[in-house]
Amino acid sequence: MKINLKHSNISSPKGIYLLLLTLVLSNFACADRSSKESLTSSKKKYALVIHGGAGTIKKENMTEAQEAAYTKKIQEALDAGFQVLENGGHAEIAVQQAINILENSPLFNAGKGAVFNHKGQQEMDASIMDGRTLNSGAVAGIRHIKNPINAAILVKDSTRHVLLSGQGAEDFAKLHGLEMVDSSYFYSERRYQSLLRAQGKEQALIQKKSTNIELIDNHQYGTVGCVALDQNGNIVAGTSTGGMTNKKYGRIGDSPIIGAGNYANNASCGVSCTGTGEYFIRTLAAHQVSNLILLNNFSLKEAVRQVIHQDIDSLGGTGGMIALDKNGNMAWDFNTEGMYRGFKSAHGDNIIEMYNE
Amino acid sequence: MKINLKHSNISSPKGIYLLLLTLVLSNFACADRSSKESLTSSKKKYALVIHGGAGTIKKENMTEAQEAAYTKKIQEALDAGFQVLENGGHAEIAVQQAINILENSPLFNAGKGAVFNHKGQQEMDASIMDGRTLNSGAVAGIRHIKNPINAAILVKDSTRHVLLSGQGAEDFAKLHGLEMVDSSYFYSERRYQSLLRAQGKEQALIQKKSTNIELIDNHQYGTVGCVALDQNGNIVAGTSTGGMTNKKYGRIGDSPIIGAGNYANNASCGVSCTGTGEYFIRTLAAHQVSNLILLNNFSLKEAVRQVIHQDIDSLGGTGGMIALDKNGNMAWDFNTEGMYRGFKSAHGDNIIEMYNE
Repeated sequence: MKINLKHSNISSPKGIYLLLLTLVLSNFACADRSSKESLTSSKKKYALVIHGGAGTIKKENMTEAQEAAYTKKIQEALDAGFQVLENGGHAEIAVQQAINILENSPLFNAGKGAVFNHKGQQEMDASIMDGRTLNSGAVAGIRHIKNPINAAILVKDSTRHVLLSGQGAEDFAKLHGLEMVDSSYFYSERRYQSLLRAQGKEQALIQKKSTNIELIDNHQYGTVGCVALDQNGNIVAGTSTGGMTNKKYGRIGDSPIIGAGNYANNASCGVSCTGTGEYFIRTLAAHQVSNLILLNNFSLKEAVRQVIHQDIDSLGGTGGMIALDKNGNMAWDFNTEGMYRGFKSAHGDNIIEMYNE
Repeated sequence: MKINLKHSNISSPKGIYLLLLTLVLSNFACADRSSKESLTSSKKKYALVIHGGAGTIKKENMTEAQEAAYTKKIQEALDAGFQVLENGGHAEIAVQQAINILENSPLFNAGKGAVFNHKGQQEMDASIMDGRTLNSGAVAGIRHIKNPINAAILVKDSTRHVLLSGQGAEDFAKLHGLEMVDSSYFYSERRYQSLLRAQGKEQALIQKKSTNIELIDNHQYGTVGCVALDQNGNIVAGTSTGGMTNKKYGRIGDSPIIGAGNYANNASCGVSCTGTGEYFIRTLAAHQVSNLILLNNFSLKEAVRQVIHQDIDSLGGTGGMIALDKNGNMAWDFNTEGMYRGFKSAHGDNIIEMYNE
């Protein structure tokens, strides 16, 4: 865990007190980095939160080099998005730039690092939502678009539609000049080995006739997402994923489903989710966080906690979410061992965490 | 408009009063067929509501024969579903049977009557949600499954997934023995002429270079849906559609999106929507009705009215929805000229309407 020391001056008693307070407050997996000051100045509220997937992320399983690689990439994404906000740019550009960095890294299950489906291909999904207009765009089952989040933005801006899928979505992206890549771009030995392991397990189960093959859960954690609040109070949420290893039958998860894996509304908050997507679809997880704030006067932290630890938990689902409200408060939560996550705000917060801290 | 006379005895003054009251109450497009009695006996609450799409459905545009054909088919679907409920059957079977009848008719834009996409094919979507478990199933972009709602039920019951799409969904349906048909089964001269008209308009616009071709709205009203409440208090909602005439790029609308075009929750209500799907996705229309009841103590009628006449209206969307709550109260509403709709309940209601009555 990294602690933000920017506001602490440990040479004074007040500084030591602030440091201790920071340590205590940081010691919750469920964070609520709210700040009274954030309510007073609209220019000072801007912030950016990102995730790189939730799952069995445990300190004992990570080498120092791995930890450093994830930290570095999350910091790079935070910095890129935050710079846009600092310069007065739109939340959508911040979200796009942060997600592009994660999509271009092999570390996460999105874009370059997308997992293999049953046929040995990458099938990616992404979505974006603009909290001011509720305009939304999404793509599902695309295979040759370098940055799926850019395709989602294109759908939002250039059509009346929300969700385009498969070859049709690719044709549309190509027509509009989006960067297309050969499927070999997405090849990585690590992901290919995951596919072979998943298929091996499946074969063993088929031979034992012990279960329905459709019931094997090969969810690969690593979906990426970002929520940004800009200086004009606009909230944008984006999510991008490679879905599940060994995925079959054109399965679509929650990432491209507005209200399930992604949601933004300037009146309440923005949310991006990661986990076993079907549970986030059935609970309308991202929309529910906004509703609990708007209709039930929940704080962002309470809303996120209720959706993860009651709605998702009670159905047996696993995963996590990041959220940012209109006042610049941030909350993240998960019911897995860990979630790659980072937060950077106009108040000087710069937090990167991975484990259940 | 048909008036339910079952509970009126016009030979007595009380009977005449009841008849007049019925006439007055029926004179609202936004109906709320609530009944005090429905709250008192759980066995007496069962009911079924269906729609066959909202749009420019006006009395002056309909021949008597057309009106009779729609009325007959809606009655057939109501009767089939209601019989299941009357015999103590599960709400899902009632929904399936009612929707199968509408899917097998060329009158509606679902199954047999599905419209043509840009390539001259039918691309159909459907979804089902079980209000007791929140289990859900959906298919998008399928082309050879005779009854798309059956594929949605199969996904719900035989996988951990919610949404399967395209060829993958078809492969899965075939593997599980669902009835497949040649695409010629879906051919109808009427729908083909609609495609030619839509493409003609598009060509004219391209030649005039007057607009972005993606912005042409060829929404074909005629999506079908059904919500049932059975004797055990289970609510199930189902929706099935052929989408938009001249649809391109693998566009997916709201019908297969849980929370957008379809939602069910035994704690609140079931909802099925029809209209310009993108607006129902952005507002999470079906989920929002449930939320307004659960979190804001709205009546079903108030919730449905707010979503259609505030949420959808304010974004410029058009369409309608049917809903049924856990107490057997029914509400339907739309902001179009008409919506094909029918309601049958254990209290003897049997209502079929089409226009803005």
